[in-house]
This record gives sequence, C-alpha cells and structure tokens, in this order.
Amino acid sequence: MNNLTDSHISLAHGNGGRLMRELIAGLIADCLGDRLGDIENDAASIALNTDGAELLITTDGFTVKPLEFPGGDIGSLAVHGTVNDLAVSGAIPHYLTLNLFIEEGLEVALLQRLLNSLAGAAREAGVRIACGDTKVVPRGEGSGVYFATTGVGLRRRSLQLGMFHIQPQDTIIVSGPVGDHGIAVMLAREQFGLRGDVRSDAASVLPLAQAATELEGLRYMRDPTRGGLATVLHEIQRATGLGVRIQETGIPVRQPVRSVCDILGYDPCYLACEGRIVAVVASAQAGALLERWQQLTGGEEAAIIGHLNCEDPGVVLETELGGERVLEELENDPLPRIC
Amino acid sequence: MNNLTDSHISLAHGNGGRLMRELIAGLIADCLGDRLGDIENDAASIALNTDGAELLITTDGFTVKPLEFPGGDIGSLAVHGTVNDLAVSGAIPHYLTLNLFIEEGLEVALLQRLLNSLAGAAREAGVRIACGDTKVVPRGEGSGVYFATTGVGLRRRSLQLGMFHIQPQDTIIVSGPVGDHGIAVMLAREQFGLRGDVRSDAASVLPLAQAATELEGLRYMRDPTRGGLATVLHEIQRATGLGVRIQETGIPVRQPVRSVCDILGYDPCYLACEGRIVAVVASAQAGALLERWQQLTGGEEAAIIGHLNCEDPGVVLETELGGERVLEELENDPLPRIC
Repeated sequence: MNNLTDSHISLAHGNGGRLMRELIAGLIADCLGDRLGDIENDAASIALNTDGAELLITTDGFTVKPLEFPGGDIGSLAVHGTVNDLAVSGAIPHYLTLNLFIEEGLEVALLQRLLNSLAGAAREAGVRIACGDTKVVPRGEGSGVYFATTGVGLRRRSLQLGMFHIQPQDTIIVSGPVGDHGIAVMLAREQFGLRGDVRSDAASVLPLAQAATELEGLRYMRDPTRGGLATVLHEIQRATGLGVRIQETGIPVRQPVRSVCDILGYDPCYLACEGRIVAVVASAQAGALLERWQQLTGGEEAAIIGHLNCEDPGVVLETELGGERVLEELENDPLPRIC
Repeated sequence: MNNLTDSHISLAHGNGGRLMRELIAGLIADCLGDRLGDIENDAASIALNTDGAELLITTDGFTVKPLEFPGGDIGSLAVHGTVNDLAVSGAIPHYLTLNLFIEEGLEVALLQRLLNSLAGAAREAGVRIACGDTKVVPRGEGSGVYFATTGVGLRRRSLQLGMFHIQPQDTIIVSGPVGDHGIAVMLAREQFGLRGDVRSDAASVLPLAQAATELEGLRYMRDPTRGGLATVLHEIQRATGLGVRIQETGIPVRQPVRSVCDILGYDPCYLACEGRIVAVVASAQAGALLERWQQLTGGEEAAIIGHLNCEDPGVVLETELGGERVLEELENDPLPRIC
C-alpha cells in the first residue's frame, strides 16, 4: 500500500512538516511493517541482554548504482552489508538504524520497492529498524537514494575472534565464488555493452558465520566487499606480518564472471562480494569448517584457497601454470559505486 | 597534520584499496584523534554498563549547505544533532558511528576542517566515534559531503519522560531564541542578497537537558530542528490530543532574525534550531526549570512560551496585538538542506 498522493519525492518530503510525516507514516512505516520500532521519538530504547555478551556496533553507507540489479537492490544490500559486518565479527545482529538521503524527483514506486526489499532482508536476518532519519536533497545533488545503516548486535564474551589470533600455517577458506556482485552490478549498468547471466551474491552470511563460530579453531572472519578478496588478504597480511600464499586454482570463480573478467581485464580477486566470508581457521579444523559450510545454503562452493606462513613477504598467488606472482594492493578502482 | 598526497578527494579514495586506507589512517583517524575507536574491524565492541539503565539509539543524516556557516559546520552539526536527540530523550550519549558520503573533487583541506570540528564537538560532548564508513560518489552525484551519524547512550530507568506523561495545564518552555540556525544558514548561502550578523545556535544541549532531568515535574523534551518550534508543538498536540496555546510575545527571537523574517516573510516558529530544547513541565516546576536553565550557558534567554489545555482544537498563537490565530502545520519548506 502507498498512501502518498505524489508519484515522486519532492523537497517538502524532507522538511519536517506534513509531507514528511506522510512519507514516514504512509510509506516508510508501511513498507517496514513489523520490522520498524518507534518512529515518534528522537531516540529509541533498545532492549538487549548484555549478560555475558559484548555489545557490537557497525555502520555502512550504500551508494550502489543502479539501485536495482540482478540478485538484489540497495535496500536489501543495506541490510545484508550491515548484518554481515556483525556476523563476521561473531555477533548476532539485533537492531539497525536507517538513514535515507533521497534525491528530489525519485519515483515513489521505486522507493517503495527498495523499502519492501529492505524490510524482507531485515525479517530474514531477524533484525529490527530501531529508528531512522530521512533527508531530501535537491535534484542533481544526489543519485536517486543513498542509505546509511548502523547495526547493533551481541557477541558472547567467550568467543575469541580477531586478526591477532591468526597463526602461521592457518588455513584460509572462502565461503563461495568471488566477484559475482561486482560483475552483476557492472553488467546492470550496461556501460560496457556487455550482457551476461550473473546475479549478485548479496545475502546474509549470518547462518554461515554462526556455524563457523561453533568451531574451536576459528581465528578470524571478514566479508570481502569493496576491494574484494585481495583487500582482505592484504589486511590480514598487514595486521599479522605473516606471509599469505594463495592457490589461484583454489579460488572459486563462476564461469560467466571469469569470462567477463577476461574480456575487460579485471581480476576477480579485486571485485566486491556481498554474501561471502573469508575465514582463517586452524589447519586441523579447516576440513570441518569446509564441510559445515558446504552443507549450508550459500556455502555449497566453499573452498580452501591458501595458508599463512612465515616466509612470503606479502600476498603471493600461485598461478594455474605453476608460477607465482605478488597480488598487489588495490590501486585504481575498476568499479565505483559498487556498494 | 594531513598525510594525503592529494589535494582533492578522488573516486579511488573510496575503493577499499590503498588510497582509501590512506584517507582513513592518514586524515580521518588523524583528525578524530582520541575520539576514534577501532578502525581495523568490521564491527566495534562498545562498553556500556546497562545496570539500571536503558540503551537508547538515534540516527541522523546531515546535508546542510553551505558546509560551513557562521556558528558551525556540517561536522560539528552532525555531532550536536545526534547528541541532542539523545540528550532530550534524557540519555547521556556515549558513542557515535560516522558515515561519510564524499563527492569526488572535495577539497581535502575542507574535509580536514570539518573532521576537526566534528572531533571537537565529540570531545566536548564526551562521545567517542566507535566506527565509521566512507563512500566516495562521482562528481555531480553529491554536494561536497553528507554525513550520517548514529548515537548510542544510556538513560537511567527511573527517568520517566515521554509525550504520554504530558497533562493539561503543563507549561511549555523553550531554552533560547528560535530561528538562529535557519537564518544563519540561509544568509550564508547569500542566495537572497542579504547579509546579517546571525550565528547558528548549533551546540550540544546536553548540559541543559541533564539539568532538566533532575527536576521532578519534567514531562517531555524535544529539540526543534527541521520544521522548528511549530513542528514540535504540532507533534505534542497530535500525540496528546490536548490544545496548545502559545503567546507570541513570549517566544524569544533575536532582533536580526526577526528583521530577516520580516523582509522575507518567514515565521521564526518554523525555522530550524540546532541548540535549543522545547520542554513540557508541570506548571508548579516551570519557574524552577526556567531559573536553572537561565543560569546555564546557552539557556540565558530561556522563556515560558505557553501551556497545554483541554479547550483549543490545535496549536493556537496569541498574537502581539491580542488576537489569536492557528499555527498551521508546516507545508512548504522555506529552506531545504538546513541540517
């Protein structure tokens, strides 16, 4: 249902007056439904039992273009992105806050689709929108809509996760093929005149992350978004000072993604994922994690991709042909506004 | 200090790679200094003692134009706005999260000033930036920079504040002159060819709010931002079903603000404040609150502006000349991008 009389957002929808109230009560609250907390107060009270648990918080901005793409849209992406940051930290997400920066002229029907999608993702992840804020910027000073979300969750205190737990010989596992999101968004822009059957991997990784935290030897998890797998490996390398050695043949990449990368000269290791986890695990437990993930939706193609060591000076990729090359830190962005 | 080699932000500063790391570690972390928490992890652990306290959360987007104006800038405004939402809810703010949406081409020196200002406001309010996120949007798809902040604070459980506590005959008090922020920003745009000596009231209202919560008869507080005093009065009227009667002569308005309003036909009651509180208090305690506020910085010009009643059908303004008129809900926005 949509109770707005206007078909497009105007500046007055952000002015604090009647039209803004109608936008919030008539469209936003309606779309978010049971996911929405208090919309009348300046601040919302959130009930969390912190006995034996740490409170974790994370925040993300979303600017993906186009707003809708195969496999997702900016609405569900905003939830997944924030939920995933908490999930890979070992936390269970409970609440989100939501900021909308809407450009004057945005079609109300599109906004409604995005908010419905956002609500669906929130429902699936079990999170509520505790509070929100809406701003409307003049035509030409935005790009449809930007979202910013902050997530709050709880992590049990006994869980020890972090880069400082990583040890030499630990195994690196990725929960599924890399680069789907980057290529799906890129193709949806059609700026290269290419078309392909690639869907974004955008999804909640909460079930995968929770399954991983039940294993003793789990050291660290991260979701490879902007900058992709290579950027996560560099963060690990920089923080631990250890060498990172990856087998190119071990990295799962879907065939259509690989084909587009071949044509355009992209390396899938640098492309954004939005539904994957890179995990570091004690080698003795690597097989157990792999097996556990492969039995879960979204983890079917999980794979061991490499190990930590004390010898390599950086992130080294063993190529398919038996050679090796350094996987450099990302310099130029192949795809701006990817998330 | 600024360790960036570039003078302007480029798309690559948002790509997740080396330049983004340099922006965050070399500029953002440097400016935020002791206010900044963990910048290495996806989610930050925040330590809050919730014994006897409620956890409160709030969020806000900031799009003010120009980015710098007499009395403030978007950096300090982002902190004040979020701190104030918690403060008027009776909470003490502890942590903020920070989202930056930077437009490609933004001058690094300007960003640095804004972040320094933000850090100063955070220090003053005693809040830390728990975590953040930076996106860079292509030139023409933003307007310099937008901020989004989420604030987390604690409110003692014994504190009973809310619109549902409001009763007929309660007194309405405003903590200082209204409309300064709206007029200061408007003049800074120079779009009307007017100049004037008006500074924004943008400031933390935390000391005023905390002083008010120590009084028994305090029912409700709100900071009148977008839509101004009139919008807060309408929210109270709508939520309580009570009549709201205001004396025009009681509303503090600075002379230069009044002059500009007279020239342009604005009503100061609809203009944004960023450092004021509207409080509803039991009439027996109104004098005590007024006295307390008038002794505090920022509250010197606090004034009783009206009362609740069971008779009036809406928000009624008694005019200077002895007549009365209904103060309508805000329809058209005189000033977009005011906060």
